[in-house]
Amino acid sequence: MADYIAPLQDMQFVLRELAGIEQVAQLPGYEEASADVVEAILDEAAKFAGGVLSPLNAIGDREGAKWHDRAVTMPAGFKEAYVQFADNGWNGLSCQPEHGGQGLPKVVSAAVQEMWKASNMAFSLCPLLTLGAVEALELCGSAEQKDRFLPNMIAGKWTGTMNLTEPQAGSDLAAIRTRAEPQADGSYRIFGQKIFITYGEHDMAENIIHLVLGRLPDAPEGVKGISLFIVPKFLVNDDGSLGARNDAWCVGIEHKLGIHASPTAVMAYGDNGGATGYLIGKPNEGLKYMFIMMNAARYAVGLEGLALSERAYQQALAYAKDRVQGRAIEGSDAGVPIIRHPDIRRMLMLMKSQVEAMRALAYTVGAAHDTALRHPDAAERAKQQAFVDLMIPVVKGWLTETGIEVASLGVQIHGGMGYIEETGAAQHLRDARITTIYEGTTGIQANDLLGRKIMRDGGAALKAAGEMMQATLAELEKQPGEEFAAIKAALGRGLAALAEAGSFIATNAAKDVRGTFVGAVPFLKLMGIVCGGWVMARAALVAQARIGAGQGGDGASFYPSKITTARFYADHVLAAAPGLAYTVRHGGASALALSEDAF
Amino acid sequence: MADYIAPLQDMQFVLRELAGIEQVAQLPGYEEASADVVEAILDEAAKFAGGVLSPLNAIGDREGAKWHDRAVTMPAGFKEAYVQFADNGWNGLSCQPEHGGQGLPKVVSAAVQEMWKASNMAFSLCPLLTLGAVEALELCGSAEQKDRFLPNMIAGKWTGTMNLTEPQAGSDLAAIRTRAEPQADGSYRIFGQKIFITYGEHDMAENIIHLVLGRLPDAPEGVKGISLFIVPKFLVNDDGSLGARNDAWCVGIEHKLGIHASPTAVMAYGDNGGATGYLIGKPNEGLKYMFIMMNAARYAVGLEGLALSERAYQQALAYAKDRVQGRAIEGSDAGVPIIRHPDIRRMLMLMKSQVEAMRALAYTVGAAHDTALRHPDAAERAKQQAFVDLMIPVVKGWLTETGIEVASLGVQIHGGMGYIEETGAAQHLRDARITTIYEGTTGIQANDLLGRKIMRDGGAALKAAGEMMQATLAELEKQPGEEFAAIKAALGRGLAALAEAGSFIATNAAKDVRGTFVGAVPFLKLMGIVCGGWVMARAALVAQARIGAGQGGDGASFYPSKITTARFYADHVLAAAPGLAYTVRHGGASALALSEDAF
Repeated sequence: MADYIAPLQDMQFVLRELAGIEQVAQLPGYEEASADVVEAILDEAAKFAGGVLSPLNAIGDREGAKWHDRAVTMPAGFKEAYVQFADNGWNGLSCQPEHGGQGLPKVVSAAVQEMWKASNMAFSLCPLLTLGAVEALELCGSAEQKDRFLPNMIAGKWTGTMNLTEPQAGSDLAAIRTRAEPQADGSYRIFGQKIFITYGEHDMAENIIHLVLGRLPDAPEGVKGISLFIVPKFLVNDDGSLGARNDAWCVGIEHKLGIHASPTAVMAYGDNGGATGYLIGKPNEGLKYMFIMMNAARYAVGLEGLALSERAYQQALAYAKDRVQGRAIEGSDAGVPIIRHPDIRRMLMLMKSQVEAMRALAYTVGAAHDTALRHPDAAERAKQQAFVDLMIPVVKGWLTETGIEVASLGVQIHGGMGYIEETGAAQHLRDARITTIYEGTTGIQANDLLGRKIMRDGGAALKAAGEMMQATLAELEKQPGEEFAAIKAALGRGLAALAEAGSFIATNAAKDVRGTFVGAVPFLKLMGIVCGGWVMARAALVAQARIGAGQGGDGASFYPSKITTARFYADHVLAAAPGLAYTVRHGGASALALSEDAF
Repeated sequence: MADYIAPLQDMQFVLRELAGIEQVAQLPGYEEASADVVEAILDEAAKFAGGVLSPLNAIGDREGAKWHDRAVTMPAGFKEAYVQFADNGWNGLSCQPEHGGQGLPKVVSAAVQEMWKASNMAFSLCPLLTLGAVEALELCGSAEQKDRFLPNMIAGKWTGTMNLTEPQAGSDLAAIRTRAEPQADGSYRIFGQKIFITYGEHDMAENIIHLVLGRLPDAPEGVKGISLFIVPKFLVNDDGSLGARNDAWCVGIEHKLGIHASPTAVMAYGDNGGATGYLIGKPNEGLKYMFIMMNAARYAVGLEGLALSERAYQQALAYAKDRVQGRAIEGSDAGVPIIRHPDIRRMLMLMKSQVEAMRALAYTVGAAHDTALRHPDAAERAKQQAFVDLMIPVVKGWLTETGIEVASLGVQIHGGMGYIEETGAAQHLRDARITTIYEGTTGIQANDLLGRKIMRDGGAALKAAGEMMQATLAELEKQPGEEFAAIKAALGRGLAALAEAGSFIATNAAKDVRGTFVGAVPFLKLMGIVCGGWVMARAALVAQARIGAGQGGDGASFYPSKITTARFYADHVLAAAPGLAYTVRHGGASALALSEDAF
């Protein structure tokens, strides 16, 4: 398997030129995120990702996490890598400084996370889940809970998990049955089984802090009766030392298509008298707390789509330059590297252009999130938050769907070798295949986009995003040349398709909710494709300005490549937009017409 | 894993109403393929596929073929199933009667093969390869070779392989290095290594007849110097009994993403003094013989895309009807089976409609092939052959690309359970992933489509196919109602897009071969989608006529479902056609503009 080399040039370009890291660094609390500091962080992260995590990726896939007698052994090298990861302080990069975090902006953390995910997605899930649990405690925990748990979690000494799913409660958390019995000392006894618990058990850290959704005895039915509990693997004494082993056990792990090194645990709580748990925040508000974190988790899974695409692209590119096979189609004396074949070029450009579009969109949304949190002006905060809320399902849904396609293209470029596991190309596809499922399937993202993000505000946030993209289109009009004409034409058609489909949804949802929601995923894809075209157009405009100013960039070809890549994206990816809008507008009735017996 | 139930109703519908099995049965030599006989064959095949092969599919995936000391052990149950398969006479269904085959039409064999592939793709590859070797011998072998090898191969007592690939010679067979030294007795000594040899070694049959591409000492370089040899695992004595073990050994098998039960062998010929081989046909004509068989093999791999889609669809449908999760989007008192959710419906309909379109197209091409072989009128034979030649890369390329998408939808419908290997949904995706690669990648199919099938005859065959599809469009115009209006609109736009893209290729290929071939795969997909729309429209027209005649069909809902499904296909699949045509016409320059260093 080819090594992973972090794409620092494009990351820096996107951070500086598209996401506006300089503006983010002027927000209160982010002053330390100067250009120099960010550059140094990315350089160090790139070294760790390429040098430590990437070589473990294939080993992790081959060996997998192993379960035995309620314990999980991680693949060779994982524990050492994790200790080093924590010691280097990577775990707390974006955590609040009060308990030892570095408080860096989300957009910087996004770039760093992209590296962890690309170099070793299965490894990266451990700190990702810890971060989710940290965020929950930061937002909703009591001062005592924060003091007791956060410092070690932020330091990476302890890891965290999120326990939502039960066999009968997957996408539908209303069906959760895990119960919590109040005890005299204010704690609770937790009873229940949770499945699909990422890093529910492992041997990389000395304690695991499980956050568990369950019901109090008097809780209302459904989603309004769910509370959130801290259930540590080892209880924590008042002096911070580890106490008794809690009645929280991993009774098995799943045999999965991919992310083999990430243990997906079946957790049994309370089979031996009850697991000790502590209520977070108020009773029956657990789902609300989960939803607060959901945006962060969904955004992070979106980054996985980007990251695996980058990894797959690097590997396919290296193979395409190296593998000599066949003559050139226009004639050649000898065999040529397969990158010279038009269809291989097309596939590489599909990978490259979508990777760049995904990165530009993800970091742009990350910076908007930082602004929404910290901007001094409340109106600006609200505006940015509306944009972030609108875009989270798109980042999650579109980046992961695209990630699977890109990883599959990576297999295809390898030909027969792509099907052989030793090559490593297939691992990226297997790893990527979970991303459209967990943290809410693409269907759930699309329903969220239509139901909560578009219909609820009457399409206001969508309209605002459309206006922002129209402004970019207006900028394109001023640029001369064939390449910008092609970008402009395709983005114009894409924006028209998006507006058309958006207004269809706005007017039709009330009278035909089922038919309208048939178009939810096609609409999400349409929106992803068009937003990707928008950020690629912005990138091309910046590149054109830099070329005009005589700045060649670090690599002389970087800026011209950006324009060409944006044009390819327009010709090959944006071109699908009108077809998707057609499906949104016309595809409802035929999807629903058959009776269930007729299938 | 859910059982496989052969979709006999749709198979029979397509055979009778779209492929014209009655006309095929009137061709000389196919008289036995009466409606009753075909029905009986399909019924028996369905029993064998569902009862014997399907239960072994998951076992084969889990256990895999095992290599030890140059021998391969098949998963439990495979040998017994194979013996039963051969004893029942399934192996020789479409083989010539002279050596024990049943001589049935290709279109009947296609339907039967679909069942083998759907029930157990890894198993089905063994008879598939045998069939390829049989066909090669039937077409090019000497009378003595035929007598010596064919009866046992057709009976399934011996299996066959095709040895093309070497490490440096994958898509490019010109690079083959295996050499053949003439011996005094007229035989040859073969020396060389072959890779990716499907069923190159196994324990299901007593002998394996390898067909091996190699070079004679005085052979010209490149593709004009390749000859084809028979290299049996055990030499065959004049009395037909098995003789000495040949110097043809399996030195390893690959660890693959899928089709685990199908041993993919590395074959070493001649490491211990030379393997005995026999020249087939004339020296240096081996590649020509291979190309004769290539159409059959590519067609068969196309059927794999269809078959795995059908299997994935059946499994996803069963899960979607069974799994209760979440409330209905329009409101419901309790949880509903997930088939009730609009996005799940959309995915199921995407699977169903594309399965039906693929089947209709594949069988139509199969029947055309029968007609091209046997029709008494030479002009009709030529016309049908031109259609078959045009469509083979579409059947191979489009059905397999679609098969991967459909299998991936099957995983998605299962949610988190789809990622767990025990469920079995992921196996179909892993199995399907090879189909766009072997027997010529999709890129190679698309180059064949453009270069040999469209440019070489000046687009005549494409134009003829377009006229045939226009005739269907004209029929649609006569039908009343919303559903036919939608089908007509989408097919009309699809045909216009195809014509546009086709004429772009015809006029542009000469002046810009590289830029034109960037659009090869998008064009192939466009053609697949439009041809699929054409056969679905034909199916809808037949259904409408049957409804008009008061014939409800076996299941009362079959005909109305067909019309609805055709409309869904139009709204959701055909809708992508104009975007693909745009990419064909505009996407060449930007794909090729970057220098290789700029990647």
